[in-house]
Amino acid sequence: MTGTSTTALQGHIDERLRPLLAELERSLASDPDCSFQAVALHHGRIVLDVWGGPHLVADSLMVPWSVTKNTIGLVVGLLVQRGDLDLDRAVAEYWPEFAAKGKGAITVRQLLSHQAGLPQSDRPATASDLLDHHRAAELLAASRPLWAPGSGFGYHALTIGNLADELVFRATGRTLHEVYEREIRAPHGIDFFLGLPEDQEHRLVPGLPVQGGPVNGPAPDPTSWIGHVLRVPGEQIDLAGDRRSTGYGHPAASGTASARGIARLFAATVTGLEDAAPLLDAETVRVIGQQQVRGYDQVLGQESRAHAIVFQKPTAAMPFGGPWAFGHDGARGALGLVDPSVGLAFGYTVARGPWPGGADGRAVRLAAGLGAALGE
Amino acid sequence: MTGTSTTALQGHIDERLRPLLAELERSLASDPDCSFQAVALHHGRIVLDVWGGPHLVADSLMVPWSVTKNTIGLVVGLLVQRGDLDLDRAVAEYWPEFAAKGKGAITVRQLLSHQAGLPQSDRPATASDLLDHHRAAELLAASRPLWAPGSGFGYHALTIGNLADELVFRATGRTLHEVYEREIRAPHGIDFFLGLPEDQEHRLVPGLPVQGGPVNGPAPDPTSWIGHVLRVPGEQIDLAGDRRSTGYGHPAASGTASARGIARLFAATVTGLEDAAPLLDAETVRVIGQQQVRGYDQVLGQESRAHAIVFQKPTAAMPFGGPWAFGHDGARGALGLVDPSVGLAFGYTVARGPWPGGADGRAVRLAAGLGAALGE
Amino acid sequence: MTGTSTTALQGHIDERLRPLLAELERSLASDPDCSFQAVALHHGRIVLDVWGGPHLVADSLMVPWSVTKNTIGLVVGLLVQRGDLDLDRAVAEYWPEFAAKGKGAITVRQLLSHQAGLPQSDRPATASDLLDHHRAAELLAASRPLWAPGSGFGYHALTIGNLADELVFRATGRTLHEVYEREIRAPHGIDFFLGLPEDQEHRLVPGLPVQGGPVNGPAPDPTSWIGHVLRVPGEQIDLAGDRRSTGYGHPAASGTASARGIARLFAATVTGLEDAAPLLDAETVRVIGQQQVRGYDQVLGQESRAHAIVFQKPTAAMPFGGPWAFGHDGARGALGLVDPSVGLAFGYTVARGPWPGGADGRAVRLAAGLGAALGE
Repeated sequence: MTGTSTTALQGHIDERLRPLLAELERSLASDPDCSFQAVALHHGRIVLDVWGGPHLVADSLMVPWSVTKNTIGLVVGLLVQRGDLDLDRAVAEYWPEFAAKGKGAITVRQLLSHQAGLPQSDRPATASDLLDHHRAAELLAASRPLWAPGSGFGYHALTIGNLADELVFRATGRTLHEVYEREIRAPHGIDFFLGLPEDQEHRLVPGLPVQGGPVNGPAPDPTSWIGHVLRVPGEQIDLAGDRRSTGYGHPAASGTASARGIARLFAATVTGLEDAAPLLDAETVRVIGQQQVRGYDQVLGQESRAHAIVFQKPTAAMPFGGPWAFGHDGARGALGLVDPSVGLAFGYTVARGPWPGGADGRAVRLAAGLGAALGE
Repeated sequence: MTGTSTTALQGHIDERLRPLLAELERSLASDPDCSFQAVALHHGRIVLDVWGGPHLVADSLMVPWSVTKNTIGLVVGLLVQRGDLDLDRAVAEYWPEFAAKGKGAITVRQLLSHQAGLPQSDRPATASDLLDHHRAAELLAASRPLWAPGSGFGYHALTIGNLADELVFRATGRTLHEVYEREIRAPHGIDFFLGLPEDQEHRLVPGLPVQGGPVNGPAPDPTSWIGHVLRVPGEQIDLAGDRRSTGYGHPAASGTASARGIARLFAATVTGLEDAAPLLDAETVRVIGQQQVRGYDQVLGQESRAHAIVFQKPTAAMPFGGPWAFGHDGARGALGLVDPSVGLAFGYTVARGPWPGGADGRAVRLAAGLGAALGE
Repeated sequence: MTGTSTTALQGHIDERLRPLLAELERSLASDPDCSFQAVALHHGRIVLDVWGGPHLVADSLMVPWSVTKNTIGLVVGLLVQRGDLDLDRAVAEYWPEFAAKGKGAITVRQLLSHQAGLPQSDRPATASDLLDHHRAAELLAASRPLWAPGSGFGYHALTIGNLADELVFRATGRTLHEVYEREIRAPHGIDFFLGLPEDQEHRLVPGLPVQGGPVNGPAPDPTSWIGHVLRVPGEQIDLAGDRRSTGYGHPAASGTASARGIARLFAATVTGLEDAAPLLDAETVRVIGQQQVRGYDQVLGQESRAHAIVFQKPTAAMPFGGPWAFGHDGARGALGLVDPSVGLAFGYTVARGPWPGGADGRAVRLAAGLGAALGE
């Protein structure tokens, strides 16, 4: 399996999974830029650890964009399990200023499932505000929701990170970053950072623009709010490369990870890593993986989106697992997910994802096939 | 109208309804297996009582599958009218163990309109559990909802029966079956049993597989949960034939009825039978027939489903009546419904329903045309 | 720009907007009946004031049908700002009889965003009831909602006017009409009346039937309730012409306005008129313009409808502005809206709107282009 050419597939494959790799091998053969990492653990043991293409090696790091949001959901799970955070209490009980402008009754559960109507603050946050532990959160606390709380949901593409960071700080006195680093990442040696430590910068591989087009799915609703809410006034900062961004590590977008790191994160927390018990007990896993919303996303203007606590749930457009599976994709093709019912943790990065962005369909099909191939 | 061949339409037809029978008569002529019963009462008087085809006679009994769910809704109506059950109280007020795993606030109204997120228990029930007055209910009470209660709904294909049976028992000290048999079925001589009395077994006609294909509607959402939640571990039991099933009479699936019985059930309870007042007053009829949910069914993965209290409401796919109509179809083509605004009660059975299952479209079109034909 | 032919476009155009008028000019050239008025104010100053076609002059009045509903939303805004009405209190706190039939918990917010399930009363109101300040409201207060309150929404085409009129009366002791006339219309010289003063009757131009067909959008859901709820028993009264209607001025349907009046109404209340402050402060504008519901309209049987407090929000079918824009169209093509984010107020009337009714697409496209053309 160890090829001499950098464009051949390399690494370890459980033989039962080999047929599932055919699509990616065809891509390696036909697309000279195709480069990816794919890793799966089954009940905490590696069954897949492959990479291929000219841009990535086994331990390359990439910014997986919204795959980073998985770190929020898992930190929240840890705090819920420990009793530091109650999903059914009002956000304002932890964060009193949040009650302004009709937000007094919004629960933690609603806030963390994109129901709070705060994809953007009334006075739009600058890039500098968004890369601060508190400033964007303060603007959001002073804002009126874009829709009546409880009446719908919509993707808080960046602000979910600022809101969660502040909420964790109010509930624990520590930033989300500290909790993640000290209690999840470092103790388990997980190659998935919030931001990018300076001593790891040499491992970062920049993403390539997505490939293909035109849009092969339905066009977005022309009245969707995504364009409005992503408009950042003032100086633009590259969230994937500028040191002001990698120094903060926006929890909604700016992690850095290898596919090994993504899969190991879910194994350490949800399925257990080798013979160790997972950080989260089975009951907590059901609490954070339970579907909270499904249907029309007000911000993206798309039907049939679904979220658990921060995480995405499987949908027709991204059918990655069963009723209790959860995870999150990224804008340029990366994917991370876990299906606790079958003990599978999966991570994927790609140097150049396909148009129109979101999870690389090849990765979704690979992940969706693992359970049956392994006899689950 | 009394033909000599068993494939000709037989029975009684109000002359105003004759044009509505043309489609079924064409089916009798062209499909040698086509066999059905269709009965309608208008303000409690028979306006249609026909049957045809080689497999069914006027008083044949069939298992109408989910048409059986109409018995749940009508029993609930009786208890609500009498004050034994309050739709807006928490289920846990009647059934304390139900409060486990975040279900303390779920109301009777939510439970009975497929909103509780319990299409399957955490530890899946066996067939034997499902055919018991209490065992599946206990498993469900100990389970976490598949979605956050209040965030959506999805068809509890079997478990709605177990949940309702236990709820009725907790509220009244009697099983749903006892209430139905003693207060609704027996006093009105209704040919629609929960289960199958041994002395009626000779009347039962087994259903034939549905006909046709491929799917002529939109394909189901590939991430729909219906496959997962209907997976029953251990021994499989035929719900339509095994004596262990017909002895219990699962309220969600395993009644036995003639079309006369289905229509008479609705007349006795909702429109009145001949000159007798109906069992349920007009206000209660509006309470149980009021739409509770409409939209995406999380379990079936289908848009545009709608439920009242247990009952289905008319939809584009099943346009059987006006805003206050309600009823329920069955997986293999049977249909039962009432439209209180126009005084119509309707029952239909079919030996071999059309692909892909659910109400036979011929029956829906027949039912939908009755009101106008009768001058309503 | 002042043409000699009545079919040429006349009036005032900010030169930056001229390209946006091309579509309407083509219609004037090709359709001998095409007649419209279009007016826009930008930060309270006229940037567009044009008319054309044989049926309308600059100051013609038309019945703009549901564009009239904008008057309800703006009156409600005034009362909310002043503290006379609280959107989050139960309707029954102002109007005790409203609590009947399971409506005790319905909030003012729900009532005014088409969520109360009262598109028709249990005993259908006659035209005479509907044209009375109290009689239809009394029938509605005694009725059971068509769907469980909170479970969905559907267009209360006429009854939203009766319900709002009574609610304003209960909260203030004055009819909605008095509040509108004395506090909004008269002080600002707005050419948009609730009803039609007798001394203005000479200015009224009757509408022509809509043009074209067949339906160029998706067919309505055949089970939609719109036909049922608009069925008025007894004598039929022409809401646009009969003196019994123009004397009352049904707030949901029977205003009379010029395009100048529609645009001026929004400028006076929301953006400010010339250098005067608007009647409603910026916070109140966000309160009444916040989206309350989006999705399937139970009455119309249409997906993707959206409402703020009474007002419509932009949708894919009517993409008239950004996330904080609001307004309302009328059945025969008229349109009124405001986008407070860009300071635009817009009014449009048309003598013969296009099939299938609702906002004239030409007006929507014109309104949608204004902001960018003006450098916003």
